[in-house]
Amino acid sequence: MSVIDENLKRLDIILPPAPKPVAAYVPFVEAGGFVYISGQLPSRDGKVVYVGSVPAAIDIPTAKQAARLATINALAVLRDAVNTDWPRVLQIVRLGVFVQCDPGFDQQPQIANGASDLLLSIFADAGRHARAAVGASALPLNAAVEVELIVHVRPG
Amino acid sequence: MSVIDENLKRLDIILPPAPKPVAAYVPFVEAGGFVYISGQLPSRDGKVVYVGSVPAAIDIPTAKQAARLATINALAVLRDAVNTDWPRVLQIVRLGVFVQCDPGFDQQPQIANGASDLLLSIFADAGRHARAAVGASALPLNAAVEVELIVHVRPG
Amino acid sequence: MSVIDENLKRLDIILPPAPKPVAAYVPFVEAGGFVYISGQLPSRDGKVVYVGSVPAAIDIPTAKQAARLATINALAVLRDAVNTDWPRVLQIVRLGVFVQCDPGFDQQPQIANGASDLLLSIFADAGRHARAAVGASALPLNAAVEVELIVHVRPG
Repeated sequence: MSVIDENLKRLDIILPPAPKPVAAYVPFVEAGGFVYISGQLPSRDGKVVYVGSVPAAIDIPTAKQAARLATINALAVLRDAVNTDWPRVLQIVRLGVFVQCDPGFDQQPQIANGASDLLLSIFADAGRHARAAVGASALPLNAAVEVELIVHVRPG
Repeated sequence: MSVIDENLKRLDIILPPAPKPVAAYVPFVEAGGFVYISGQLPSRDGKVVYVGSVPAAIDIPTAKQAARLATINALAVLRDAVNTDWPRVLQIVRLGVFVQCDPGFDQQPQIANGASDLLLSIFADAGRHARAAVGASALPLNAAVEVELIVHVRPG
Repeated sequence: MSVIDENLKRLDIILPPAPKPVAAYVPFVEAGGFVYISGQLPSRDGKVVYVGSVPAAIDIPTAKQAARLATINALAVLRDAVNTDWPRVLQIVRLGVFVQCDPGFDQQPQIANGASDLLLSIFADAGRHARAAVGASALPLNAAVEVELIVHVRPG
């Protein structure tokens, strides 16, 4: 069992099957040593479970959980991308977080930490990533957050 | 004639001259095996032809056409990037779609499919891309959509 | 003194210490020949100095200055990424600019030029970048803009 599997187990995270794209694209593309993972939503069993705009419809701690769940889905895609061979993951390179929020809301970083903290917990130094977190007026399926990853990998 | 040229012809698409950037940047940069294409708008002959916010000012099918047109413009830039040598295109890696929309609108994926479907029609397997589609409260020149591409290419 | 240092001096720009991330991520990641720089805000001495939405709370020329300042912060991070060895910078590849703005505002490109013009002034041809500029309903710490960079570098 790799250290990544151990970390997932320690955190009581069972990666789900990778979510199916909600439209005409693919969950990931690997090219030139990078895996690009499509924007992931906070969904479970095919249903978005954290919806609405922060803070009117969903509070910050809950939206942070949404960011964590969307990241778990991104990791389910990454697992498929590396064919469960976690040591192929060299570095989480970039995390993009879009937070559906009301105008004037300015605490996107706290919410995005739900994603960042999880990546650090699981990948340690290899999980230290660059990040952009911004507000969005609207997101697919009314999701509270959308999370995107670029990962540097060793060729398989 | 390459298969890409054939596919464009079959779809009755004549790629226009690549749109000129609307400000101080360049249409594309090639680096490290990737072509990064600047955000493209749904413009024709230098004029943005699909404007306003979905769904108040522009409906979903029309916005989907806007995404298709912006992607045609991105492909015009890509043609220049590979110097019309289409077999240099190894893979469309990432498609980013920003949809100008009203708060609460949640069907960005349907609109972004106007871009995704076109890429698949033209490039087949090499057109299978990762994607992030999000809502934006406002876009340059009041465009309904903005489309961005990263493409893996064989060095020229 | 490298030409980059000379250009900075000519422009009277003293790069500050790289801003500390406002949350659980790192200022940059280098992987596969690219440096990814985290989203930068228009901050000085740890405080965001250009806040609010364009044009209601902040006008276009001022927001353009904000884009310039956020880019100076991104360059402070880049300096650390290349360990002050500026000739390692091969090309500024992609500039992402998020502009906090009111619905219907459509002049994000003018504001983003505050970033683009600076990159061209400092890096000349190596500063010619692809760009995506979009509107955002809200940004971290109420910043008027957020700026993100991808840079192609020679391995150190």
